[in-house]
Amino acid sequence: MSKFFTDRLSSLVPYVPGEQPQDKKYIKLNTNESPFPPSEGVRKAVAEEASKLQLYSDPECTELRREMAKVYGLPEDWFVMNNGSDETLNFAFMAFADEKHPLVFPDITYGFYPVFAEINHIPYEEIPLKEDFSIDVNDYIGLGKTVVIANPNAPTGKYIPLSDIEKIVKSNPQNVVIIDEAYIDFGGESAVALVPKYDNLFVTGTFSKSRSMAGVRLGFGIANPALIADINTVRFSTNPYNINRLTSKAGAAALREQKYYNDNCKTIMKNREWTEKALLELGFEVIPSKSNFLFAENPDIDGETLYLALKEKGVLVRHFTKERIKQYNRITIGTMEQMQILVDKIKEIKGELGV
Amino acid sequence: MSKFFTDRLSSLVPYVPGEQPQDKKYIKLNTNESPFPPSEGVRKAVAEEASKLQLYSDPECTELRREMAKVYGLPEDWFVMNNGSDETLNFAFMAFADEKHPLVFPDITYGFYPVFAEINHIPYEEIPLKEDFSIDVNDYIGLGKTVVIANPNAPTGKYIPLSDIEKIVKSNPQNVVIIDEAYIDFGGESAVALVPKYDNLFVTGTFSKSRSMAGVRLGFGIANPALIADINTVRFSTNPYNINRLTSKAGAAALREQKYYNDNCKTIMKNREWTEKALLELGFEVIPSKSNFLFAENPDIDGETLYLALKEKGVLVRHFTKERIKQYNRITIGTMEQMQILVDKIKEIKGELGV
Repeated sequence: MSKFFTDRLSSLVPYVPGEQPQDKKYIKLNTNESPFPPSEGVRKAVAEEASKLQLYSDPECTELRREMAKVYGLPEDWFVMNNGSDETLNFAFMAFADEKHPLVFPDITYGFYPVFAEINHIPYEEIPLKEDFSIDVNDYIGLGKTVVIANPNAPTGKYIPLSDIEKIVKSNPQNVVIIDEAYIDFGGESAVALVPKYDNLFVTGTFSKSRSMAGVRLGFGIANPALIADINTVRFSTNPYNINRLTSKAGAAALREQKYYNDNCKTIMKNREWTEKALLELGFEVIPSKSNFLFAENPDIDGETLYLALKEKGVLVRHFTKERIKQYNRITIGTMEQMQILVDKIKEIKGELGV
Repeated sequence: MSKFFTDRLSSLVPYVPGEQPQDKKYIKLNTNESPFPPSEGVRKAVAEEASKLQLYSDPECTELRREMAKVYGLPEDWFVMNNGSDETLNFAFMAFADEKHPLVFPDITYGFYPVFAEINHIPYEEIPLKEDFSIDVNDYIGLGKTVVIANPNAPTGKYIPLSDIEKIVKSNPQNVVIIDEAYIDFGGESAVALVPKYDNLFVTGTFSKSRSMAGVRLGFGIANPALIADINTVRFSTNPYNINRLTSKAGAAALREQKYYNDNCKTIMKNREWTEKALLELGFEVIPSKSNFLFAENPDIDGETLYLALKEKGVLVRHFTKERIKQYNRITIGTMEQMQILVDKIKEIKGELGV
């Protein structure tokens, strides 16, 4: 920290993204990327747009929102597009939470929520998940606070049904309820269906997972036009051109090729089932997942030991040091070939450890 | 504004970007874009990267900073890359200004500065430019506040020499001095040369203007590693993956093709001289410019009238409604063909108005 850094942020602890080691080629199962490349139309659209980069992008994201409207079945002014769903979440925290509307989220969830709260000086409360890592819906009923729930949750993969989401939204009519659906396309039912019914529901999503575009940085918010306008007030006060021309074209093209991505999601769900079964057979406890990852622990192998041993063998998974989950690892679901290697390497490690 | 919008930001007036009308094809001289497309290597790099978009970008921007280091002649850890220089500026305001270190900038300058100050609740003071729109360096000596100066300034195009910048930096050792060099490549001398000498100097730049990449959204900050680390604390607390893979590759490729962009800058400077002379002959007062635009007024034609008449004739320039500059228009320098059309249309308008 330089001597010039503001006191306001001096206690800030930044988010730590999943490691991207450059020392050798890994099977990367640590950041929930898709194992599939973007669709043909995306690649074509990006290449075509490359000759027009001297011109600013459209700050209204007109084409992108038009395609969103077609896929999600709501009018264009119910969408806001951002530079990754991290930006959408940060803007939503800025717009809808403050001293009078503190934030509430589970103790085990996406690690960026407390960071966004800290940098924006928003008071927040973490509600412990139940013993089995599920959310107790009753904890969130009539709270009178700004609620943020990732559904499915990260890093557990646990999903709560839409009826529970609706109870939470309905019982907090004076506060915005933010549902972070980064992983909704792998078997969950989206809360977007409830958006027309509740003026306090704000749903966020991303192109990073189900649409194979982690490297494009495209996220979005879906809500009634009044909430969307609030996010745009923040957006036009920080970075109106946050979506560049290439991202915009890539996103629009992907939305026109939903079948490809839907098929990929089905494949990942199938591979997830296979991997879950294989891990159970190897003595793991596996949290039932509706996401593109599994959260698992083995009572005979320390979580960090397994993470390091897998890394040594060229397979990267994500390990968290937080006390409550440090015996677990989060494993991204990749291709069947990748999953087979993962399972083989775990078998090797078990043999080496004699467990 | 929805009833959920935080009181904290309720008085926020967002920045208004230059208009991007879709009704017909304009000669766009209103947002200081380059008239030249990106270089061949940029287009190739983007097309190649399009098949790897399922993977996250490198949050360290390793390749990009390596190329920056080669072009700017400083080590890699003296650079931070952001999603447009707007983001760099916003992060720098967040990091280096607060109640104890209020912001100071000219009354006529980039319109986003007061917006960034407002959204971050940073007190700020605007110091009037002199009658001829030049900065009085004495106003900024020993201020004990966080200074922001665009050099060349926008929308005037006025440039202050490096010796004056150095006086300001030297006389405010307890505060960061931010020099916004969005337009430095059109004839000015960069303050990057002073960065190794002053621990309180933070220089920002962009690929939007001289490098033909407004649509890519790539900006940067150059300073000693301690200040860069502070910006990274903010960046990793809001959006660690703010630079996507395509932007990263486009930027790195552009830095390897500096000759193309340097030649374009020379062409624009030549076209600027031609246009300035033509406007002077048409009775305009033109502020001497070291940027890729001219700021000009005609005593016989109201500023808004000229803007509207040019728009009617298919030429977009930028008009600001602020009292002190409302008789002026900011005209981006394009190709000679575009400049010829601009001059012809102004002649037509003069004829129609009988002035």
